[in-house]
Amino acid sequence: MGDKDGGGIVGVNWGSSNFRAFLIGDDGQVRDTVEQPRGIAGLDRAQMQALIAEVAARWPQATRWYASGMIGSNIGWSDAGYVDCPTGLAQLAAHLHEVRIGEVPVAIVPGLACRRAVDDAPDIMRGEETELLGLIASGHVPATGLVALPGTHSKWVRLRDGAVVDFMTAMSGEIFDRLTAAGLLASVVDGPAEAGDAFHAGLKAGHDSGLGLGTLLFGARARVIRQDLPKRDGASYLRGLLIGAELADVARLWPGALAGTLPLVGAAPVCALYAAGMAALGGHAQQILSHDAVTRGFAALHAEAVAA
Amino acid sequence: MGDKDGGGIVGVNWGSSNFRAFLIGDDGQVRDTVEQPRGIAGLDRAQMQALIAEVAARWPQATRWYASGMIGSNIGWSDAGYVDCPTGLAQLAAHLHEVRIGEVPVAIVPGLACRRAVDDAPDIMRGEETELLGLIASGHVPATGLVALPGTHSKWVRLRDGAVVDFMTAMSGEIFDRLTAAGLLASVVDGPAEAGDAFHAGLKAGHDSGLGLGTLLFGARARVIRQDLPKRDGASYLRGLLIGAELADVARLWPGALAGTLPLVGAAPVCALYAAGMAALGGHAQQILSHDAVTRGFAALHAEAVAA
Repeated sequence: MGDKDGGGIVGVNWGSSNFRAFLIGDDGQVRDTVEQPRGIAGLDRAQMQALIAEVAARWPQATRWYASGMIGSNIGWSDAGYVDCPTGLAQLAAHLHEVRIGEVPVAIVPGLACRRAVDDAPDIMRGEETELLGLIASGHVPATGLVALPGTHSKWVRLRDGAVVDFMTAMSGEIFDRLTAAGLLASVVDGPAEAGDAFHAGLKAGHDSGLGLGTLLFGARARVIRQDLPKRDGASYLRGLLIGAELADVARLWPGALAGTLPLVGAAPVCALYAAGMAALGGHAQQILSHDAVTRGFAALHAEAVAA
Repeated sequence: MGDKDGGGIVGVNWGSSNFRAFLIGDDGQVRDTVEQPRGIAGLDRAQMQALIAEVAARWPQATRWYASGMIGSNIGWSDAGYVDCPTGLAQLAAHLHEVRIGEVPVAIVPGLACRRAVDDAPDIMRGEETELLGLIASGHVPATGLVALPGTHSKWVRLRDGAVVDFMTAMSGEIFDRLTAAGLLASVVDGPAEAGDAFHAGLKAGHDSGLGLGTLLFGARARVIRQDLPKRDGASYLRGLLIGAELADVARLWPGALAGTLPLVGAAPVCALYAAGMAALGGHAQQILSHDAVTRGFAALHAEAVAA
C-alpha cells in the first residue's frame, strides 16, 4: 500500500456479534477497515483463526496486532483476564495478553475489574477500556470526572488523571430489548422511544418511587390496560423507568456525580434519552461523537507499549 | 352421569397458555376435568369456539358456564373489564360479563383493578380474583390480611373482611425466565435455584443495597466472572435479587406487612424461595396447598349469583 510511515498496526475490536479490524498508520490514521458480522459467539476456534488469516493476507505490511473485546473473554480465543482498578494506559500496556491466533501474534487487551466502595460488589468491563483510552488520548473526555457509555450494558466510569478509578454497569438496554421482544411487555410497545411526557413520567417513577423494576415494569402494562398510557408511548415509558432507575444508582454510588456536565458516548438515539433524563434531574450531558475512539485507543496502547 | 344434585356448573380457567375446565357439582365437588395446552395466545376465535363446543358436548348436563383468566382480556373472546377495588364476591358476581361462545352462554369473571396509595399507580389482575374468592370461601386464607401469590407475575393482595383492598404485582418470575433464557445472564445459570447461601446473598443485595435490578443483575455476571459466585449458584443468586427487591417493594407499600404470618399460595418450588426470603426478613410464611381454589371460586360466584 506504499505507506511511507511504515507498515502500521492492526487493531481488532471483536465482540460477541461483530468483528471490526482496522489498519492504523503510524500517524494514528485508519488506512483500511474490515467489518463483518462474525462475532465470537458464532465462531469456533478454527473459524476465528481463518478470519484472522484472511485479514492478515490483506494487510501483510502490519507490524503488530492488537485485539480487544470478547475475543479476550472466557468464551473467546484466550482469556486475557482483568486488570484491577484503579488502572490506566501504562498498566493495560504492561498486561497485554500475547497469543498466536494461527500464524499471527496478537496482543489481547485485558479487561478492567473493580470493586465498588458502596456495596463491595465486583464489576467488569471488556472492550470499553480500549474505547476509553482513545477518548482520553484524544481529549474527547476529561482525564478526571465521570463518563457515561450508554448501550446494551451501560457503563458509568469514574476517571482520575486519565486512570479508571471504578465504574458501574447497568443492563438497562438488554432488559428493555429482551422484555419487549416477547412476553407481557411486548404487548405495551409500539414504535420507538422518545424523550417526551411518557419518558419523563417513567423517569420519575424509576428514579423517585423507591420501587423496584419488577414492580414498575409490570405497572407499564397496567397503565396501558387502564388507558393511563397510550401503547405508542409504551417504549418511551419503559425506557424512562430503566434510565430513571439507572441514574438513581449512579447518584447512590457517587453522590453529586450527576450535577455537573457529563460526557455521554454512544449511539445517538440512546444518548438522546440519557441526556434528557440527566437534564430532568438537574444535570447536563455533552454528547460525544467519536467514531475513532477504538482506533485511537489501540494507537495509544501501541505507543505506550513501544515506549516502555 | 347420574348426578343426583343436578347438572352442575362448568368453570373454565383459560389463560394465555393453558385451558382448564371443570364440571363442578352443586355440592362444590369437581366431577370431571378437561386440561389442554390450548391457551388464548395460540387460538383464533373459531378455535376458541370449537374448544368450548367440544367441552359442551362432553358435559351436556351443565346448567351454567363461568370462565376467568385471559379469555376475558382484550386478547381473549371478549373484554370483561375490571372492577375497581375495594371489591369482593358480591361486586364480582354483579359484574359478570355475559357472552355466547358459539352456542354456549358463558359468564366471564371481570378482573380487578386498583390504584395504590403510595405511588398512585394502577395495578391489575385477571384470573387470580377467582382463585382468591375460592381461598377465602374455603377458609384457606384469612378474610383480613396480606396474601402472596408468587409466580410469573407475583401478586401481593391486601384483604379486608373478604374484600380486596388493593394489591401489587411484580414480574419477578418473567424477568428471571426471559433474562436467563438467552443473553448475558444465560451464561451465569446452571441448574435450579435453592434457598442456600447464594440465594440469601442475592436476597440481601436486592433488599438492602438500594441499587436497582439493572445494576444488580449485571452484578451477578461480574460475580461469576470474578469467581465470587459459582455458576451452579447463579440461579439462586438471581432469584434472591429479584425476591429481595420484590419484598422491599411490599414493605415500602405496606410498612410492617411482612412482620406477621402470611399465606403463600403457588407452586411449591417458588413458594419455598419466597418463604425463605420472608423468614430471613423476620416474617413467617405459611404455604397453602389448595388445588381446588379456582373451582371453589367458581362455586362461590355461582352461589352468590343465584342468591342475588
